[in-house]
Amino acid sequence: MRTNIPVVKAILQANEAVASENRTAFDAAGLLAVNLMSSPGAGKTSLILATVERLPDTLKVGVIEGDIASTLDAERIAARNIPVVQINTGGACHLDAPMIRSALPHLPLTALDLLFIENVGNLVCPAEFDLGAHLNIVIASVPEGHDKPYKYPGMFQKADGVVLNKADLLEILDFDLEAFRHGLRILRPDAPLFILSCRTGDGLETWIDWLMGQYRLRRERHGR
Amino acid sequence: MRTNIPVVKAILQANEAVASENRTAFDAAGLLAVNLMSSPGAGKTSLILATVERLPDTLKVGVIEGDIASTLDAERIAARNIPVVQINTGGACHLDAPMIRSALPHLPLTALDLLFIENVGNLVCPAEFDLGAHLNIVIASVPEGHDKPYKYPGMFQKADGVVLNKADLLEILDFDLEAFRHGLRILRPDAPLFILSCRTGDGLETWIDWLMGQYRLRRERHGR
Repeated sequence: MRTNIPVVKAILQANEAVASENRTAFDAAGLLAVNLMSSPGAGKTSLILATVERLPDTLKVGVIEGDIASTLDAERIAARNIPVVQINTGGACHLDAPMIRSALPHLPLTALDLLFIENVGNLVCPAEFDLGAHLNIVIASVPEGHDKPYKYPGMFQKADGVVLNKADLLEILDFDLEAFRHGLRILRPDAPLFILSCRTGDGLETWIDWLMGQYRLRRERHGR
Repeated sequence: MRTNIPVVKAILQANEAVASENRTAFDAAGLLAVNLMSSPGAGKTSLILATVERLPDTLKVGVIEGDIASTLDAERIAARNIPVVQINTGGACHLDAPMIRSALPHLPLTALDLLFIENVGNLVCPAEFDLGAHLNIVIASVPEGHDKPYKYPGMFQKADGVVLNKADLLEILDFDLEAFRHGLRILRPDAPLFILSCRTGDGLETWIDWLMGQYRLRRERHGR
C-alpha cells in the first residue's frame, strides 16, 4: 500500500486549498460554519433541529446535508423552512471541501448567520478532510458506549467541542461518564463537553450559549 | 478525483486475491469465518461474547479484533479465555484481506470451528473490502434509528444476515421496525433479520440456531 501514499497526500492538499477558499467565502458572508461529525444515528440532524428551535429568531440558519444516499435528513430540515442543500456522496464515506464548494451557490450565504454542515455518519474518515468550517463538533451518544475516544482518537482529536447526546439514557445504560471524560481530556484537554438530550431538551442551553458566544466572537473578529 | 480511480481498483483487486487465499485457508482448517460489521458501539463485541456463552462447549471459537487504536475489545474477549488477535489499523477505517492474512499465524486455525472477525466500527468503508470470510453480518442497533438501510445501502447490500441489537430499547425509543425491515428488504430480500438484545439475551436463540446451521452446512460441503 506504500505506493499510494503520495496519491492520498495529493488529495488532502487539493482538499485543503479548497477548504481555505470555502472559509474565505464564509468569512466574507459573515457567517459561522459548523461541521457536525458523528457515528451513524448519534443525532446530528436532531441536534440541528433542537438548536434551531432555541436560537433567537433573528439568527438565520442554513444547512448542508451530507449522506451517502437518500434525502431523509434534508426533508426533516426543509420541513422547518430552513434553507438546505443535500449532498449525496454516492458511496463516499465523508464530505470533502470541493463538495461543500459545489453546494454554496445553492444557499443564500450572505443572508445566513450560521451554517451547519452535517457530515456523513462515520467516526473515522470525515476527520481527515477540512471542509473550511470554523468549528468541528463531534457528537457522541450514550448508547455507543464510553470507550469511543479511546477507539476513535483521530476524530476526537479534531473536535473543537464535543456533544454527548442521548443523556436521558445515562440512567438506563451502563455508561461510565468519567471514563469518557478522561478519554476526551487526553486527546483534547480544552474542548468543552456538552452533555445533553435532544429528545428531552435537557442540557441544550449550555451548548447554545457556547455556540452563540462562538458566533459573536467571530463577528467581532471580522469587525461586524 | 477521476485520476485516482485506477489506484482504488488496483487496491481492491489485490485485496480480493488475498481474500481468496484467506478463504482457502479457512476451508482447509474446516472453520466458518464470520465478518461482523456495524457502526461504532452497535454491539459487535457484545454479540461475540453473548454468542460464545450460548454455543455448545465442544465448539472452538477464535476472534480477530479490528480497531483503529486500543486493545479494549480484545481484552474483553481474552478475559473469557478465547484465542484472540488484535489488529490495530493505525488510522485505517476498515480491515482488509492482507491484515487478516497477517493475523492468521497467531491463531490455532485447525483447532477452531468458528472465527469471528470484528471489523472497525464504520457503516461505510468495511463493506468495500472482502476479507475472505464466509458470512458478512451487519449489526444495526435500535438507538441508531430505523433509517440506516436507506442511508447506508452499500453496507446492507453486503449483508448475509442482519442483527438488530439493543431491542430492549424498542419500547423506550422511537424506532419504526417496519420501516427498517422495508429498507432492508429492498436491498437484501433474502437476508435474515435477527431482532435481539445482547444485554437481556432475548432473541439470541434464533441467531445462534441460524449460525449453527450455517456452520453445519459448510462442514458438510467440505465433507467433514
